[in-house]
Amino acid sequence: MSEPFDAVDVIRAKRDRRELSDAEIDWVVDAYTRGVVADEQMAALAMAILLNGMSRREISRWTAAMIASGERMDFSGLSRPTADKHSTGGVGDKITLPLAPLVASFGVAVPQLSGRGLGHTGGTLDKLESVPGWRAELSTEEILAQLEDVGAVVCAAGAALAPADKKLYALRDVTGTVEAIPLIASSIMSKKIAEGTGALVLDVKVGSGAFMKDVEDARELARTMVDLGTDAGVRTVALLTDMATPLGLTAGNALEVREAVEVLAGGGPPDVVELTVALAAEMLAAAGRDDVDPAEALRDGRAMDTWRAMIRAQGGDPDAELPRARETHHVLAPADGVLGRLDALAVGVAAWRLGAGRARQGEAVQAGAGVELHAKPGAVVRGGEPLLTLHTDTPERFERAVAALEGAYDVLPEGDRPLEQPLVIDRIA
Amino acid sequence: MSEPFDAVDVIRAKRDRRELSDAEIDWVVDAYTRGVVADEQMAALAMAILLNGMSRREISRWTAAMIASGERMDFSGLSRPTADKHSTGGVGDKITLPLAPLVASFGVAVPQLSGRGLGHTGGTLDKLESVPGWRAELSTEEILAQLEDVGAVVCAAGAALAPADKKLYALRDVTGTVEAIPLIASSIMSKKIAEGTGALVLDVKVGSGAFMKDVEDARELARTMVDLGTDAGVRTVALLTDMATPLGLTAGNALEVREAVEVLAGGGPPDVVELTVALAAEMLAAAGRDDVDPAEALRDGRAMDTWRAMIRAQGGDPDAELPRARETHHVLAPADGVLGRLDALAVGVAAWRLGAGRARQGEAVQAGAGVELHAKPGAVVRGGEPLLTLHTDTPERFERAVAALEGAYDVLPEGDRPLEQPLVIDRIA
Repeated sequence: MSEPFDAVDVIRAKRDRRELSDAEIDWVVDAYTRGVVADEQMAALAMAILLNGMSRREISRWTAAMIASGERMDFSGLSRPTADKHSTGGVGDKITLPLAPLVASFGVAVPQLSGRGLGHTGGTLDKLESVPGWRAELSTEEILAQLEDVGAVVCAAGAALAPADKKLYALRDVTGTVEAIPLIASSIMSKKIAEGTGALVLDVKVGSGAFMKDVEDARELARTMVDLGTDAGVRTVALLTDMATPLGLTAGNALEVREAVEVLAGGGPPDVVELTVALAAEMLAAAGRDDVDPAEALRDGRAMDTWRAMIRAQGGDPDAELPRARETHHVLAPADGVLGRLDALAVGVAAWRLGAGRARQGEAVQAGAGVELHAKPGAVVRGGEPLLTLHTDTPERFERAVAALEGAYDVLPEGDRPLEQPLVIDRIA
Repeated sequence: MSEPFDAVDVIRAKRDRRELSDAEIDWVVDAYTRGVVADEQMAALAMAILLNGMSRREISRWTAAMIASGERMDFSGLSRPTADKHSTGGVGDKITLPLAPLVASFGVAVPQLSGRGLGHTGGTLDKLESVPGWRAELSTEEILAQLEDVGAVVCAAGAALAPADKKLYALRDVTGTVEAIPLIASSIMSKKIAEGTGALVLDVKVGSGAFMKDVEDARELARTMVDLGTDAGVRTVALLTDMATPLGLTAGNALEVREAVEVLAGGGPPDVVELTVALAAEMLAAAGRDDVDPAEALRDGRAMDTWRAMIRAQGGDPDAELPRARETHHVLAPADGVLGRLDALAVGVAAWRLGAGRARQGEAVQAGAGVELHAKPGAVVRGGEPLLTLHTDTPERFERAVAALEGAYDVLPEGDRPLEQPLVIDRIA
């Protein structure tokens, strides 16, 4: 078959800061998916996009081309409105777990098609798989039935959604081109738009434990994604939220499920509750329910009821005991005082090294492994008492986890206060 | 074997405008040659180098790493000094043919390890292969013996010189990264330094028929290559020369050999003579012979004697008739007047389409095909008389060759003069 464009011409255009036409974008994404554009050609193009950028029209078209590479889901037959959330990933980010049943308890369908973790950020599916019996793989029919019956579903995204994104993401990962904002935005949004949600709330994390270290980059990413969603007819809002310190008091699969259940029971760490309620309010408003108070459904048990139904619908036992790691090790506070800082990236790397995360796709993770925090910045600590507890089944991992935590925290003189950063930094709509 | 670096870290460093260390450069070139760094990773790195540049130290080290990927030749055992020339390629550029024997006739050894043509610029080996019996492939021993006996050798560069460059060049060709000045310079200079010449004169062409369209880019490339040669202990000089219009009156293999023989016989087009003499004077001076007048050796037959010996040494018959194409077609001057412009690129593309060049490596070329010019800019032309003669064995090619020449020339009113550009624009040492 004769091709309408030459890959080298398309690469050169972006290299020389010319805008790509709609036809060029459609072709290059499709031809890459077909294998006509080679990996080395797409790698050069991705680097040119990273360094020279893309216009709003180019990003929008690129996203549409990725959606067109696969199937789309259709929730229009449901009796409920749909709302989805996407987080760019952080340490201790278990928010999906209480959030999905909470929002669903108000009659909104929440389809959370999720992925597994890679590196220092955990994956929602890995967390839920620590619940005995729970399974992540559902057919489209099962997803639709569960959305209608229970309202919330958290499951693996099928390979049929935006296959171009899957191929491109794997390439970007090995070619130093992950950090291109147009490509990050189109990767996330192509899957969310193909998934067919009516409303979408983005949690764009900023800080050491996040992908975006800098608030201006995070704002640009959020703005780009909100524009993409809006252009595609999805009601889209983004919150910029702090990821300088881990969310809550746990990082690790079963540890985080336990904390999520506490939140669903009306307790849990204040930051996890605050962010869950803030995101729920946005999702409910975007789905037309700005008349309700999501915090109430955490207090009165409605969210917990939906959680239990959601876990049961996917084969899980909500009453089963969660796995615990076989070994623990305490990291002690070095002095009396006030915890000034606890670095999210270091905690994430420690949890990963303890076995909670994976270095390569397909590796197994330990359900019980992770890091438990006994204090958050601003709390009083006592020298010699546990600051962190490390959990693993394989104690030879403690040494490298402890090494990751070196320099990750400091204790201020009693009476001092650390710099306070609001959890929700900005809202972009 | 465990690797000291991660390709993604090296790509990111250049992407983020950090200088690569010597150890990083040595590793990435070596690991790419070994296949440990994948094509898509080198493509991303090449694009980052193209867009973010390299320091003089980085380019110098990159060149050294490419040299270290293969063998080096050694001319130190020769009784003569060595001097080499490299042209960045143009249309009608047959200068090597008279130049090598001319310089050799003064007792300087001229090792011209050359390549074949690709696209609209011809290759020196393709030209000489139109001489019946002549062969391009010589062993290292044959090269050394011929340099000692005859003084001049034009032959194929062995695959053992800078194999990293060969692999990288093929990759750049398909990834839109050919135009990176650090990579062009290191590609050329790695081969020339590995070849072991003591002196090197670079002919950096500027204009429509050249790789560099812009004089400032050409100057930067020339400066970069002169620095690289100097840093490696090779006496290196560059001339910037005009390639807005073809060199001489022919573009095509046997057509150009015929013109080169005219120059060696003391005749030939003035621009070909001027450039041959200018480059010969630079090579002779760099080899310690600034006491001689190269033009004299064209007039008194010494250069021709060396040419005949050089052709014979490689199996060629200098007295054999050169091939002629079976078919010709005239392109007529559209009006009486003065030829204002004759575009080098268009003539090069026409010659290529007539069969003188190849679109892919390994394709055969026609010895007799090409374009013959009956006038150069500034000459008086008569409407209806031939301006160009096209030569090919395959007359179905005339149509596309004529199409390539559309808009490539204009005829000014009689008495007007076209803008004059000096042939040698600048000298960089």
